Amino acid sequence: MKKIKIFSPATVSNVACGFDILGFPIESFGDEMVISKSDKKGVRITKVEGYPVPIDSKKNVASVSAQKLINDLKPSCGFEIEIKKNIIPGSGIGSSGSNAAGSVYGINKLLGEPLTLKQLIKYAMSGEAASSLTEHPDNVAPALLGGLVMVKSIHEENIISLPVPKDLFCFVINPKIEVKTSYSREILPSNVALSSMTKQVANFGTFIYALHTSNYDLIKVSLIDNVIEKHRKKLIPSFDEVQKKCLELGALGCSISGSGPSIFAITKGEENAEKINTEVTKIYKKTNIDFSTYISKISSKGIKVIDSN
Amino acid sequence: MKKIKIFSPATVSNVACGFDILGFPIESFGDEMVISKSDKKGVRITKVEGYPVPIDSKKNVASVSAQKLINDLKPSCGFEIEIKKNIIPGSGIGSSGSNAAGSVYGINKLLGEPLTLKQLIKYAMSGEAASSLTEHPDNVAPALLGGLVMVKSIHEENIISLPVPKDLFCFVINPKIEVKTSYSREILPSNVALSSMTKQVANFGTFIYALHTSNYDLIKVSLIDNVIEKHRKKLIPSFDEVQKKCLELGALGCSISGSGPSIFAITKGEENAEKINTEVTKIYKKTNIDFSTYISKISSKGIKVIDSN
Repeated sequence: MKKIKIFSPATVSNVACGFDILGFPIESFGDEMVISKSDKKGVRITKVEGYPVPIDSKKNVASVSAQKLINDLKPSCGFEIEIKKNIIPGSGIGSSGSNAAGSVYGINKLLGEPLTLKQLIKYAMSGEAASSLTEHPDNVAPALLGGLVMVKSIHEENIISLPVPKDLFCFVINPKIEVKTSYSREILPSNVALSSMTKQVANFGTFIYALHTSNYDLIKVSLIDNVIEKHRKKLIPSFDEVQKKCLELGALGCSISGSGPSIFAITKGEENAEKINTEVTKIYKKTNIDFSTYISKISSKGIKVIDSN
Repeated sequence: MKKIKIFSPATVSNVACGFDILGFPIESFGDEMVISKSDKKGVRITKVEGYPVPIDSKKNVASVSAQKLINDLKPSCGFEIEIKKNIIPGSGIGSSGSNAAGSVYGINKLLGEPLTLKQLIKYAMSGEAASSLTEHPDNVAPALLGGLVMVKSIHEENIISLPVPKDLFCFVINPKIEVKTSYSREILPSNVALSSMTKQVANFGTFIYALHTSNYDLIKVSLIDNVIEKHRKKLIPSFDEVQKKCLELGALGCSISGSGPSIFAITKGEENAEKINTEVTKIYKKTNIDFSTYISKISSKGIKVIDSN
């Protein structure tokens, strides 16, 4: 195999009570990447289509993560990467994570899979860090592993694929305005009230229990963010109206994806996600802001090969 | 049935990452209470043996919770309560919770069990509040329900009995010095660093996952308190030495029970708890502080009837 074309999904992270801990891929939306072996050593970004990201291989997250991988694997060849960016940078659905994961996934495939998907996470994460200045695997881990992933720490054994009740779906709206992850981090308080912490801990624990027991009522009362959302929602037009509508229509939870501006809602069943899509679309049409919406299974697969030769 | 004698267990609460959320009973240790029907309406504490608690029925947690129950159930008789206190007040193992739960449990039994154990929790909690000034069911809920209980909120449906791997045991040491719950709350910071919160949330979620999957390795890396322990341990002689020894000997976790001074360690297997008991006993003998130690299954039953007629 000399060349591989992959689909690397967008991801929802900071899933309500799971700030910096939880993420899952969006089944139907992501970037496409073509990775080819090259006689010339090292990694080069040879083409970027769609939304702009750095073509400089020292700055592009895909080549940064790929270089880290190559430093360890020491293959006899180099690699060229083409990126078709469908995900807008700064949209809160793992734009950089998609590429940081995609390159290491593709190179690992081209080299005969010397590493497991879990082993690839730390390399993908180092690419992420080039973009967001923080090393959080809550986008790259679900992009690579698929499904709902809990990240307790960056160590492999602490990255956990959670059980997902089969009826869990997700609606996502991506307003096409950019919110820089770094700015969105800046506006967060450095401290949290002890009582808010306790609520967040209790919600997260209850959510994990609810996943294991397919208890939708408990998902609904626990998929809540008491700490982060109130600060970041100010950057998102019509957030309150969208959230209210989602919950009115029966969503199990609704909060900010990543650092925004994308908003997600978790639903029981695809039909509920579609109903929410219709109504939230009406709300957003009034804002005059361009937007896209997506519906996905929560248990969807992550990154995948589209073509190879 | 006119008279009932019950055993109401001591409880470990604030279980490491489960501050204000988790608790479980100690199988072999608790207070004994005798509750009798009386022709005279209302509730009276007629006898207190062992450690001193108020005999004034407006101040004793057992009669306060009983009175709340009676206000709702409106029985045709009154009740007299005798308490044999084995648990020292202010020991961090649910001294007041034991009595607040015991009285409502006993009265409910004498009245033919009109309420479920879960329904009794809110009454028991109102008794607790008379002692600690806060309404936290993390002692009374495990005392009543048995096993490891997660309390997301005071609402019945948010009080959850967790699955417990069968090999989970607990060692507890109760140094016989009093730490007032109210003082132990005062020394806590009102705010917590956002990064500490995220760690605590991740640890708690991982712990809940680990319980469901009987993953002892994940219990060991998640049963940690980053937030509360460092403040309260100053009130507990030799805490650091005890914790270090417990972890060296293979404990899955070790932290402060309740608001202290009791210390608990969770172990895999009873044998490990016994080994820890031997070694921690040696440490504490050097302090010249009187103490008791207990070993309990985590999945042990809660409150129970000893005798009735």
